[in-house]
Amino acid sequence: MADSLRIYNTLTRKKEVFEPLHPGHVGLYVCGPTVYGDAHLGHARPAISFDVLYRYLTHLGYKVRYVRNITDVGHLEQDADEGEDKVARKARLEKMEPMEVVQYYMNRYHENMRQLNVLPPSIEPMASGHIIEQQQMVNRILQNGYAYEKNGSVYFDLKKYSETFPYGKLSGRVMDDLMTYTRELEGQEEKKHPFDFALWKKAGPAHLMKWPSPWGEGFPGWHLECSVMSTRYLGETFDIHGGGMDLVFPHHECEIAQSTAALGKSSVRYWMHNNMVTLNGQKMGKSLGNAVSLEEFFSGNHSLIEKAYSPMTIRFFILQAHYRSTVDFSNPALQAAEKGLERLFNGMRTLEKLKPAAQTTGWSNSEFRDACYAAMNDDLQTPLVISQLFEAVRYAHSVQAGTESITAFDLEELMRLFKTFAIEILGLHPEESGFSSRLPAALMDLIIRLRSEARKRKDFTTADEIRNELEKLGIILKDSKEGTEWEMKE
Amino acid sequence: MADSLRIYNTLTRKKEVFEPLHPGHVGLYVCGPTVYGDAHLGHARPAISFDVLYRYLTHLGYKVRYVRNITDVGHLEQDADEGEDKVARKARLEKMEPMEVVQYYMNRYHENMRQLNVLPPSIEPMASGHIIEQQQMVNRILQNGYAYEKNGSVYFDLKKYSETFPYGKLSGRVMDDLMTYTRELEGQEEKKHPFDFALWKKAGPAHLMKWPSPWGEGFPGWHLECSVMSTRYLGETFDIHGGGMDLVFPHHECEIAQSTAALGKSSVRYWMHNNMVTLNGQKMGKSLGNAVSLEEFFSGNHSLIEKAYSPMTIRFFILQAHYRSTVDFSNPALQAAEKGLERLFNGMRTLEKLKPAAQTTGWSNSEFRDACYAAMNDDLQTPLVISQLFEAVRYAHSVQAGTESITAFDLEELMRLFKTFAIEILGLHPEESGFSSRLPAALMDLIIRLRSEARKRKDFTTADEIRNELEKLGIILKDSKEGTEWEMKE
Repeated sequence: MADSLRIYNTLTRKKEVFEPLHPGHVGLYVCGPTVYGDAHLGHARPAISFDVLYRYLTHLGYKVRYVRNITDVGHLEQDADEGEDKVARKARLEKMEPMEVVQYYMNRYHENMRQLNVLPPSIEPMASGHIIEQQQMVNRILQNGYAYEKNGSVYFDLKKYSETFPYGKLSGRVMDDLMTYTRELEGQEEKKHPFDFALWKKAGPAHLMKWPSPWGEGFPGWHLECSVMSTRYLGETFDIHGGGMDLVFPHHECEIAQSTAALGKSSVRYWMHNNMVTLNGQKMGKSLGNAVSLEEFFSGNHSLIEKAYSPMTIRFFILQAHYRSTVDFSNPALQAAEKGLERLFNGMRTLEKLKPAAQTTGWSNSEFRDACYAAMNDDLQTPLVISQLFEAVRYAHSVQAGTESITAFDLEELMRLFKTFAIEILGLHPEESGFSSRLPAALMDLIIRLRSEARKRKDFTTADEIRNELEKLGIILKDSKEGTEWEMKE
Repeated sequence: MADSLRIYNTLTRKKEVFEPLHPGHVGLYVCGPTVYGDAHLGHARPAISFDVLYRYLTHLGYKVRYVRNITDVGHLEQDADEGEDKVARKARLEKMEPMEVVQYYMNRYHENMRQLNVLPPSIEPMASGHIIEQQQMVNRILQNGYAYEKNGSVYFDLKKYSETFPYGKLSGRVMDDLMTYTRELEGQEEKKHPFDFALWKKAGPAHLMKWPSPWGEGFPGWHLECSVMSTRYLGETFDIHGGGMDLVFPHHECEIAQSTAALGKSSVRYWMHNNMVTLNGQKMGKSLGNAVSLEEFFSGNHSLIEKAYSPMTIRFFILQAHYRSTVDFSNPALQAAEKGLERLFNGMRTLEKLKPAAQTTGWSNSEFRDACYAAMNDDLQTPLVISQLFEAVRYAHSVQAGTESITAFDLEELMRLFKTFAIEILGLHPEESGFSSRLPAALMDLIIRLRSEARKRKDFTTADEIRNELEKLGIILKDSKEGTEWEMKE
């Protein structure tokens, strides 16, 4: 394709041409979940957004090393430096060993990702599996003079740091803002300044997840793991760091400070952030009673959800918006997405059945291809790719209706392009959207043949019976002069 | 049930009544895979054998904490103390970061386990995630005088240990044998005695997976992780340790020595070992060219495999033998198992359709139930449970044929018992054995009805067409006076 991939860099606030550090290779790090509860839309969106980036970079021929972490320790309530560890709290409530909680919710997260057709990352490191490496980074920061130890905890010295390095570049916050933002919490008196953050926290005797360290028994601060595991697997400087917009401050700002203080550089070349999701126009939250889990979306088992929505409907709905726009989930919007997705897959089936002709009218594969690549190259404009795919579906129907025609060569090329963008790059998997495995389709072909034979012999009772029975199963028959098509009722 | 669960303890070489350390709770540790290649039958057998144990203990009402590890570091070629790390070697050959190799094969292992309907363990710890804990145990063994440091490596002092504690109890090997067994390998000159084994190995500059330690940069010895992670999550003494018989010596013998040297006790109360698998009568091995992966069994894509065998066929075949017997895989034996499994599921469908009568003849649910429990309680005699299930299938056919009868109450009870043992305890999942999801079954009902109507109106052309078309799809129709049944062709 003519133009290159451009991505919006949160750090510079503009779209930049993407050029990897090492030609042909891309290092990508994305903040993964804290595994103390079921995954919800706030987990699905970054996973799907960066899955599409991963798929597209791979499609472009890059060898991508994609690292997405699992936070299993050190993430305290309210994302602050005090309070209970989220995993340990859940373990206490459910009377389990913390690692049982981690394993349980991590397994469920993986199952949800599989359902959403999100490819597994190349490496999925756990914070608890990199304690030594985290202690090493704390040591480097201490040695470089940007941290101090107090009563067995180690804090990042933000004032000292900001004398040499700019703090707040990513989020646009200035140091003075921080004073206002910072809440007074227990243990704050250990800090030189309220906005200093913990690199290592001393653990009390009742604390379950703790390790020996040069500063006594404790556990790493939440921000530390990402600085450590990203550079451990991708090198001290790497290409892309992604995550949800809610992580820009303070999490990613702290990551930049940590890496700079330890390594003398901020490590990340392109920062990418997906926007937030809302439900019926509201921010989601446990206290608001509208934190619907992915499981609940898939089963329809929640008072705010009118029916079950398939994982592919959720994926498609998320990709219908650009990743930097907000997305509002609502029943009408999801049902529209469900219909749209079905129309897309039906269109793909129609394409597969088209009869080629001597010439192609009303269509240019190269325009279609260029428009799709242009959309993807423009900071992953998936909504534009989807609208191109719908153009192709409309065209397929025109060919079927006989108002346009296509050659065998062009048809094959169109099919290939359609599948490349819909299945390979957007990751829309027809298998997951209801019913299209080989055997049921073959049974449907037989049933449709039996019905057509019944109609030929004027046995309309049987023909109607077949239509009605199928309708009970959610299958709609559509007769046309080309024959009978079937589709799943939305 | 009247009697209690008895399991064969490798340590005492006899069946013992199982009594957990903490009433109502069971701690279970099983050696998991070294993730540097695709899983094969040698991985499937322990996973399935101990999955049935896990399911049965859970069924009996125990709260089971099941820990199965992932070995991602320290497992050297030829299970010896020298040579290249298996994961690092694969990484070098495939030009990947070792953790990419780990993640890739771990994901594939998990997918295989899912296909085999093996439940995920409660905790699946990784060796690389517990380096600090391993260093702590090395320290304790050093402090207790049962290990020595040499050139940055730490070795277990087996001679010193055997002066106080018996070594070889589990395997029946005596110290003198060990001298013969031990090969002369590079680096052996550091050891006081050739049979000493490494607890911590110094890493050279080219070594990728290494960590700082009190003895310099290095990595843990392979045997260490299991002693550490089992006691970390299950306590210093726990109930059951399982694994393949090939691990008895030296791996589990070394585990006992390590735990005893560090903690003063051998930690494990019941040792359980599954026997080995062979293929066409031969031991499997890469050098023998007969190391067929599970993936290859499932796809039929290997010269030694005549056709694809479903994961459930593999599971069923493994459970047809007692876990302490050897199992020989061959095409005829697998095809027989495939037929047997299909007969079992067809039998379950028959049961579901039986018409109840006023009295029950020729069957006793309590005898059936007692026989199944007695088999499971006798060291998990799954083959006997399966033969009981086939008794029930034969009985179902007799009721269907009208030679026996069953009341509604007994029928419901029989269904419940059948499902408890076949699905819940043996883990045989009908969904996985071909074709039985709701929709295709509903389409089959419609097709069978259309065929029966065709026959009623003497339209034998249509009836035969239906039979032939279905046969092409691998579906066999069976007519009887009760109506028409269908099943998948083996």
